[in-house]
Amino acid sequence: MTLPPTVAWVGDAARGHLELLDQTRLPDHREVLQLTSLDAVVDAIRRLAVRGAPAIGVAAGYGVVVGLQQRPSGRAFETHRDLVCKTLIDARPTAVNLSWAVERVRARLAAEPELGAALDEARAIHDEDIALCRGMGEHGAPLIPDGATVLTHCNTGRLATSGDGTALAVIFEAWRRGNRLKVIADETRPLLQGARLTALELAEEGIPVDVAVDGAAPALIARGEVDVVLTGADRVAANGDAANKIGTYSLALACQAHGVPMYIVAPVSTFDLSLPDGSHIEIEDRDAEEVLSVRDQRIAPPGVGARNPAFDVTPGRLLSGLVTDRGVIRPVDTESVRAMLAPRI
Amino acid sequence: MTLPPTVAWVGDAARGHLELLDQTRLPDHREVLQLTSLDAVVDAIRRLAVRGAPAIGVAAGYGVVVGLQQRPSGRAFETHRDLVCKTLIDARPTAVNLSWAVERVRARLAAEPELGAALDEARAIHDEDIALCRGMGEHGAPLIPDGATVLTHCNTGRLATSGDGTALAVIFEAWRRGNRLKVIADETRPLLQGARLTALELAEEGIPVDVAVDGAAPALIARGEVDVVLTGADRVAANGDAANKIGTYSLALACQAHGVPMYIVAPVSTFDLSLPDGSHIEIEDRDAEEVLSVRDQRIAPPGVGARNPAFDVTPGRLLSGLVTDRGVIRPVDTESVRAMLAPRI
Repeated sequence: MTLPPTVAWVGDAARGHLELLDQTRLPDHREVLQLTSLDAVVDAIRRLAVRGAPAIGVAAGYGVVVGLQQRPSGRAFETHRDLVCKTLIDARPTAVNLSWAVERVRARLAAEPELGAALDEARAIHDEDIALCRGMGEHGAPLIPDGATVLTHCNTGRLATSGDGTALAVIFEAWRRGNRLKVIADETRPLLQGARLTALELAEEGIPVDVAVDGAAPALIARGEVDVVLTGADRVAANGDAANKIGTYSLALACQAHGVPMYIVAPVSTFDLSLPDGSHIEIEDRDAEEVLSVRDQRIAPPGVGARNPAFDVTPGRLLSGLVTDRGVIRPVDTESVRAMLAPRI
Repeated sequence: MTLPPTVAWVGDAARGHLELLDQTRLPDHREVLQLTSLDAVVDAIRRLAVRGAPAIGVAAGYGVVVGLQQRPSGRAFETHRDLVCKTLIDARPTAVNLSWAVERVRARLAAEPELGAALDEARAIHDEDIALCRGMGEHGAPLIPDGATVLTHCNTGRLATSGDGTALAVIFEAWRRGNRLKVIADETRPLLQGARLTALELAEEGIPVDVAVDGAAPALIARGEVDVVLTGADRVAANGDAANKIGTYSLALACQAHGVPMYIVAPVSTFDLSLPDGSHIEIEDRDAEEVLSVRDQRIAPPGVGARNPAFDVTPGRLLSGLVTDRGVIRPVDTESVRAMLAPRI
């Protein structure tokens, strides 16, 4: 049974609507949300029904169209447009792709103040995301030895983007090219995106996948059971230091200790050249309750606190390369990063 | 509310019984099992109502007494004794302390074939375990800087032994000496002994404790939020390489990368000098279902497998020392291990 699309627009600009696969209900339920109001879009973004920076961006672009459909009579188009954009951006203030996508649609509307232009721009964002994923897949696939066991962390696939993903796009492309690889998916506590989402995406495609607890990865690497590690990134500094889901750094330490290659896969839009290195990346500490419970079931006794850093920083020097939609950055250092990201002529 | 004892004998040899705190129900329920039959003892050991190598050993010693109480008329004492011992040892064949304790009571019974002697020997095993824990606590406590944040993994406390524990005995002793330390407890997937049991033991004692997902520990160490790491061990080789609960190795890699001291705390009975190094330690791979579910709730989609190595091996060279009931082994190498373990004159 094929997974429904992560994000889709159904119908025309005037009467169409946004559809999102509700990721909070996976893997048990495959519920597609039909969103016909701005409130419903904001709610879906807030409660992580859609997640993964690129997917949030695409959803938010379409969200502007949904919001514009509801203009009350008597309110000026520009006034309504700005209200819609602000409401969407405020849904998750730290999600960079969200504000980027909304601002892009707003800029298009400044030139062409009509619903059709908004949908056209949102579709362009969507198409570009699919193309970026394809680029990462194509540049990364040759790095996976035939029949390799690939270890990955968190979810970086079709559920995190509107295309094939970042690290998972590489795995999907290698598989399509006939590489009979196998995958070990870290379960990725606290929110279990690996066990719930990555395992689901790979199983759907018929790619063999085993889940492991996050603490097992270094032992599996030490035992020679992993040929290559691939993860995504949430933000990459100018020297290649990369912030990604908590637990990624542990993989890099183990890969270094045992000579196993590790690649981080991210589009160039994830790079932030204003940050010289990873020490400048701000790390979000999230709610303790995510750690103290598993899928709404309490695991710790009362009166106990939690530490919940959502991301960690992997030094670029521990990586074998950074796979982008434009090509592979290696060695990982400021010079190579700047060369890959230089504006194209 | 104080936790009931992990293992206790209530009454005399002829009519007394074994009591175990059912650890599978913690932290939600504090149920004490009253075990008056061999079948009940075997069942409790098998389903991990009692866990932790020392605690299993103490429970099994008392289990022999329970078994002897039920001798059918007409069966010879020696025949019955051997049947009881075999039944107990078969409950968890890989638990070294279990067979060691049962064989010790059997040897005593060979010299003194009576119930009272069995209870006397089981009590001696119990008392010795308490004394070993005290020894580890006393030798380890001075290693914890005042006010330190100590990170630990799995459960190594009163619930794993019949005394104060191994790594947790060090923490309890430092606390009693006035050290206002704080603890970060790795949750320890898959069975969550850290979140469920370690957090409970520390909170009971009023020691501040935060739980963290296993993948977060290297980031917390890198951020300078951890002053010292303490864990237990299931088996230590002659050169100090130590097998412990899956996830321990990751801590050692992070400690080495960031200059944070890490100690493993284990009684000399945990050392196996027949193994020259950690590569000779056999690692148990446990049931996939432990990974694919959390406390009986399924987290992964159907058709997905799991890797579930129960232990990993931390090289002794990454450790600042091995804390034993006799003293601290450092540097960690074969010479120092053999010197500490040499038979005492």
